[in-house]
Amino acid sequence: MRAIASATRLVEHFAAQQVHPCYAVNEPRVGIDAPVERIRGRCFWWKLRAISATGPGFLGYGHYAATTLGDSVVDTRWAIFGTGGISAKFVSGLRHAKGAKPNLVVSRSADSGRRFAQAFGIPEVAEGYDSVTAASPFDVAYIATPPSEHARHAIACIEAGKAVLIEKPFASSVAEARRIADAARAQGVFCMEAMWTRFNPAARRLRDLVREGAVGEVRQAHGAFCFTNEPDAANTSFDPQRGGGALAQLGVYPISLLHWLFGAPEDVAAFGRTGDTGVEEDAAISLRFAGGVVATVNTSLRALGDNGLRIGGTHGSVAFEGPIFRPYGVRLQRMTPRRKGGDTGLGRKALLREQGLPQKLSQLHGLLTRSGKVERQLFAGNGYHYQVEEVGRCLAAGLKESPEMTLDDSIAVMETMDTVRERIGGQR
Amino acid sequence: MRAIASATRLVEHFAAQQVHPCYAVNEPRVGIDAPVERIRGRCFWWKLRAISATGPGFLGYGHYAATTLGDSVVDTRWAIFGTGGISAKFVSGLRHAKGAKPNLVVSRSADSGRRFAQAFGIPEVAEGYDSVTAASPFDVAYIATPPSEHARHAIACIEAGKAVLIEKPFASSVAEARRIADAARAQGVFCMEAMWTRFNPAARRLRDLVREGAVGEVRQAHGAFCFTNEPDAANTSFDPQRGGGALAQLGVYPISLLHWLFGAPEDVAAFGRTGDTGVEEDAAISLRFAGGVVATVNTSLRALGDNGLRIGGTHGSVAFEGPIFRPYGVRLQRMTPRRKGGDTGLGRKALLREQGLPQKLSQLHGLLTRSGKVERQLFAGNGYHYQVEEVGRCLAAGLKESPEMTLDDSIAVMETMDTVRERIGGQR
Repeated sequence: MRAIASATRLVEHFAAQQVHPCYAVNEPRVGIDAPVERIRGRCFWWKLRAISATGPGFLGYGHYAATTLGDSVVDTRWAIFGTGGISAKFVSGLRHAKGAKPNLVVSRSADSGRRFAQAFGIPEVAEGYDSVTAASPFDVAYIATPPSEHARHAIACIEAGKAVLIEKPFASSVAEARRIADAARAQGVFCMEAMWTRFNPAARRLRDLVREGAVGEVRQAHGAFCFTNEPDAANTSFDPQRGGGALAQLGVYPISLLHWLFGAPEDVAAFGRTGDTGVEEDAAISLRFAGGVVATVNTSLRALGDNGLRIGGTHGSVAFEGPIFRPYGVRLQRMTPRRKGGDTGLGRKALLREQGLPQKLSQLHGLLTRSGKVERQLFAGNGYHYQVEEVGRCLAAGLKESPEMTLDDSIAVMETMDTVRERIGGQR
Repeated sequence: MRAIASATRLVEHFAAQQVHPCYAVNEPRVGIDAPVERIRGRCFWWKLRAISATGPGFLGYGHYAATTLGDSVVDTRWAIFGTGGISAKFVSGLRHAKGAKPNLVVSRSADSGRRFAQAFGIPEVAEGYDSVTAASPFDVAYIATPPSEHARHAIACIEAGKAVLIEKPFASSVAEARRIADAARAQGVFCMEAMWTRFNPAARRLRDLVREGAVGEVRQAHGAFCFTNEPDAANTSFDPQRGGGALAQLGVYPISLLHWLFGAPEDVAAFGRTGDTGVEEDAAISLRFAGGVVATVNTSLRALGDNGLRIGGTHGSVAFEGPIFRPYGVRLQRMTPRRKGGDTGLGRKALLREQGLPQKLSQLHGLLTRSGKVERQLFAGNGYHYQVEEVGRCLAAGLKESPEMTLDDSIAVMETMDTVRERIGGQR
């Protein structure tokens, strides 16, 4: 398989076998005749370069699942590990997913398990996270216990032959993330991080626009997720023992989305602030990606601030409408690069523009409108079911990983977050 | 004077002399009983700490000009150095400034000087930048030649005893910036960088809000100025010999405004991209300030992208409405830090919120509205005259520097930009 030298030949190869790409990009507008760089299982990656009028330039990584991931899903019974707020939202969303059914609640105490099961009409309850066996009545486990417990609970399920969807952050260290991935690969069991935003319609649309060259050659990105909380060691977000911290709780969104768009960064710099409970409460991060895209990320558990994603290129910019974890639209602004003109600033039009009245009108117009064109990409339900359907699709296609959220990618995101933490060190 | 130990005593001291602060912050809401940290001439700096209900925390540097900078200005005749587009905008703005009058155009060629003078009805034209003497018919020079020429032209004026307002970037290196400052101090001549945004009403309002504790303790900031241009060595922006580059041309805005709010950064990290003409075309910057505020900055000559400033604190965030170089409003969003609640996600309200209909309504609402409250702060004219009036006010008060834009601060901004360039090095 490695003899297939370019993405074009790869596409031809699978077309000959009547296997169609489902994740391939919009080929007519983007050149994909680039060497295949990475092969894992039946997924292939290559660098995309725009060959449109916007000129050449790195656009991100393309990938191609050499199988038909159509609309078909397998029916799945789900076990819910953990009964916190995120599990409640997840199960609320589950009903919108084709073929998926919550069948079992697993929790530390039978009491909270029963309360949770009752609220959602889930038939079975198991007490204790170690109670899972191959005979347990579920096909896929959704792991939403604290990050520090992810590895233990996920590996228990994997060893029982169950597929797993693990809440982000994937684990509380790179070493644990690797242990989970190794276990899943050894057992031949499907495993994916629940980075649900990668399956959100607006996020998909943003990525498609970027790959189609809608903003030209990408050069800049900014992502942020800041929210203000009362610091409290009893809150998982502030507890270093349970995998808290701004990065694990919030920063993982912009960081994971940037990995999704541009691959793992080649270099990472960061400053931050460690709070009294021992977790990083703030971070300001700079990233450099292959191909030269540079990006910044702000994240905070203690400050209200930016919450979004914006990609800037030579011919425009595209940004989320709505919060970074669950956007519901994209705002696209197109622009032709400005040429150095012979504008002396002395023409009638130029002089008129600097007068008080046109300036006032322009300010009022600016306060009433925003630049760019918004395209609605409303999510259905509460948006949590898209990742569930991805699990069903992958299982139907016999994949052990989703091409959209591979295990290597989850590990790479963990590595980036570890590097950020290292750079922050003891800054207070 | 250095015996005055705290800002409170300083205020009392000058009150006793019937000299009133004009740049002092809103004292009833902010504690200023902190040691004076820096004294230069008649300006004093101290650290501000909020003592309001939002809890203690670093808010930025306060400063206090120990003189009455009232509304009075001295009448000034201006010489315009350079006849490019920026000079045209500046002179268009000048007519809105009290007491200021453009009296002389100085340019390399008499031809372009005459054309410029004619367009604005400026009575005098001088050919050649070396023609200036003490007898030249102006009081203040506005230096808008390429950055690489700033030091030469400014120092010539300073040595002729003329006040100078120097377009940003202040110079093309830290060494040149120091030479300008040294010359101005040696001659006892007024000198200021034309960082006009520091005198813009919306920017002033944003800073006042931050200092009054409107967003609580500041922890995060993001500033950006990205615009897409055709790379062209004939364009000053892309010419390393004339002081081009994304930082000097655009990045100087967010960097200078962050200095204004939080002082010089204690640490700087950056990635970027150097173009074919040899200037940095892109930068993604992380900054750490005294007191722990962390910030990111994106700037680009080649990409459309973010263009704004946002400050995030424990109790809210405040951002510019309008572009970072000339905002016309502020958007303030207040929020109480979230406490870890007993919310199980199983209550009726929580479950209802996750249903499809409320989620859909919330998305549509989000597309139609934006969070926060906008306060209009329209600028008059084209906004360029505020800095001119500051020059007039400072001259009336006998100041050699503006407390809002000191020479030390201009040098510090240059130092930060040099550090960023150093970090970027040869990245392409």
